[in-house]
Amino acid sequence: MLAEYARRYRHNLLESVVPFWMRHSLDHEMGGYFTCLDRDGTVYDTRKYVWMQGRAVWMFSRLYNQLERRQEWLDAATLIVRFIRRFARDPQGRYYFSLTRDGKPVFYQRKPYAAFFAVLAFVEYYKTGAGGPEYLEDAAELFWKVREWIRNPALLDRPMYGPPMSQLADIMVEASMALELMTVDPDPRYAGVLRECLAAVRAHYDVQRGILLENVAPRELPEGRLFCPGSAVETAWFLLRVLQRLPDAPLEKLLLDVIEASLEYGWDNEYGGLYYFRDVDGKPPAQLEASMKLWWPHTEAIYALVLAWTRTRESRWLRWLARIDDYTFRHFVDEEYGEWFGYLDRQGNRTHSLKGGSYKGFFHVPRCLLFSIQAIEGAE
Amino acid sequence: MLAEYARRYRHNLLESVVPFWMRHSLDHEMGGYFTCLDRDGTVYDTRKYVWMQGRAVWMFSRLYNQLERRQEWLDAATLIVRFIRRFARDPQGRYYFSLTRDGKPVFYQRKPYAAFFAVLAFVEYYKTGAGGPEYLEDAAELFWKVREWIRNPALLDRPMYGPPMSQLADIMVEASMALELMTVDPDPRYAGVLRECLAAVRAHYDVQRGILLENVAPRELPEGRLFCPGSAVETAWFLLRVLQRLPDAPLEKLLLDVIEASLEYGWDNEYGGLYYFRDVDGKPPAQLEASMKLWWPHTEAIYALVLAWTRTRESRWLRWLARIDDYTFRHFVDEEYGEWFGYLDRQGNRTHSLKGGSYKGFFHVPRCLLFSIQAIEGAE
Repeated sequence: MLAEYARRYRHNLLESVVPFWMRHSLDHEMGGYFTCLDRDGTVYDTRKYVWMQGRAVWMFSRLYNQLERRQEWLDAATLIVRFIRRFARDPQGRYYFSLTRDGKPVFYQRKPYAAFFAVLAFVEYYKTGAGGPEYLEDAAELFWKVREWIRNPALLDRPMYGPPMSQLADIMVEASMALELMTVDPDPRYAGVLRECLAAVRAHYDVQRGILLENVAPRELPEGRLFCPGSAVETAWFLLRVLQRLPDAPLEKLLLDVIEASLEYGWDNEYGGLYYFRDVDGKPPAQLEASMKLWWPHTEAIYALVLAWTRTRESRWLRWLARIDDYTFRHFVDEEYGEWFGYLDRQGNRTHSLKGGSYKGFFHVPRCLLFSIQAIEGAE
Repeated sequence: MLAEYARRYRHNLLESVVPFWMRHSLDHEMGGYFTCLDRDGTVYDTRKYVWMQGRAVWMFSRLYNQLERRQEWLDAATLIVRFIRRFARDPQGRYYFSLTRDGKPVFYQRKPYAAFFAVLAFVEYYKTGAGGPEYLEDAAELFWKVREWIRNPALLDRPMYGPPMSQLADIMVEASMALELMTVDPDPRYAGVLRECLAAVRAHYDVQRGILLENVAPRELPEGRLFCPGSAVETAWFLLRVLQRLPDAPLEKLLLDVIEASLEYGWDNEYGGLYYFRDVDGKPPAQLEASMKLWWPHTEAIYALVLAWTRTRESRWLRWLARIDDYTFRHFVDEEYGEWFGYLDRQGNRTHSLKGGSYKGFFHVPRCLLFSIQAIEGAE
């Protein structure tokens, strides 16, 4: 039933998205890749953003490992992973947020996410066979550090004045690292981490709306009322993948319903598209960009819907997929220069011409397309 | 010529803005004031944001010192300044960014601005006569610390990997503190600091456009291309006030022209209003909110235009004032519940119903209105 989607996604991935990044982003001179690319691929900022570097290594390696053994994809992964290993670590083994084009540190973020993406990069690159055992060893070691940093951000020089809040992002980070590592590392503790993640997500469940809240925090604080449709849906599909290894039928049903409820509540009935943030009590969201439409909640929704359909064959997913896919291809996909736009205002007008930035790189779009193709074709 | 504006601004200040904050924001139970107020004044976040606490002490004290000796304004300043002195300092004498309602630390920002607003608060409160000499002593001591923190952010635990960039904000911070302190503290070094500020701003001048750039940085970096109309215009009026003490006719002419050029280039010819950020080379700005219309660039523009007119009596200022004032009163001023809205999309639609937040408190609006009234009435 979804063969037509798979055909279109494959075409977009291989004829538009991957070529755009292969053509414009790789820094063959100094290593790594540029992510700040304007509509036509022109570089408008030569900095190297470490989250983005790690994500791209993972993505190029994954394409090489699972879609097609194209040497140029492996070479791209190699170019970027070497840059990370050479420049992205600080003397204490933490990771910078951004570097100059030639690898000098620019900014240190007090967050564990640069290191998290380095873990993903190292594991997937290890799986290509091009990286030696040190890639796996470093990933496994860094995995436990990231866990510790999440629990004690003071280790990242971020003073904490109370226990850290549970955040959906952190559940995803831990689940994601454990899921990747356990495929190549027999350490039995990864399954325990995944079980913890499955337990932790229940505290984010909002019974009344059937959605996942971003944080576990008192409802009188803005953090406790924050809903991010993109991250709720991403967490849900992520944990559905975890459940393939650790089955739990009631939780599977709950997460499927979370996808539907998050889209219902996250969808803008007036102008279409998924909101970036909402306050579940209708109070003003703290984020100025709350009502904007970003590309990535839409990529997460597309794959979540494809996955939900292949798991259940319920027609509710097809209706939603048609709606999200239609909005996405009309608003984000750039038929002229390739890749997708990233940022629209609430009404759907483009606010930025960029194809990549410090938070948009070679990741959400190709991951959504690849995973969706695989789910559809695997299910047929 | 501007008497009608002064009448309207006085009415807005005394019948709408001040009453809104007096009625809804003061926390008589735990001290300080709430800034996260929804359209009707409902508190939607009880946190105390330290920048905002300091700004309000300055503002209430200034109204008391210069507009009218209303006891309730002094009481409001007292309620907030005591909260700051009791809770906002960390054990090393630095200032937190945010506190719980009852004063426990929540977040530490690695920036000098919370301390900067504490300096303004202490000096102006000292001038009310209600604060003892310790207010002035603390302000003077903190002034030199803030200067040091700007030059060496590592003292704030922000690792620096190169020399800090010159930022307009920091020039304003130093000029602002020195200008306030020198009125009550005979230390001759303040004039030297002001001279440094007047020299430093020249490096931000963009000859081609006649505007002030936000940062002094290479043009191939986004920071080096960043233009914020609000902050260019605020810096210009600020330094025009400094020039009243340290006259420099060529610089005065340059700053006046900066105001006009910044409005010309900052104005959205399609939808009206001042952009929040622009990239002077037309590349994509990094800020998602770049094309949004915020209240504070408009308050800064209004006062800058009033000041420019009272200094020069040139008609170019009246045309611009009519345009900005009209946009502002049509879009931001809330005739129903008082105070101003803060955030619109590019087209002028409200994106947030709030009247206050973690960055919008009792400051830009009343300062603009008070200063404009004073300039108009002083000039008549």
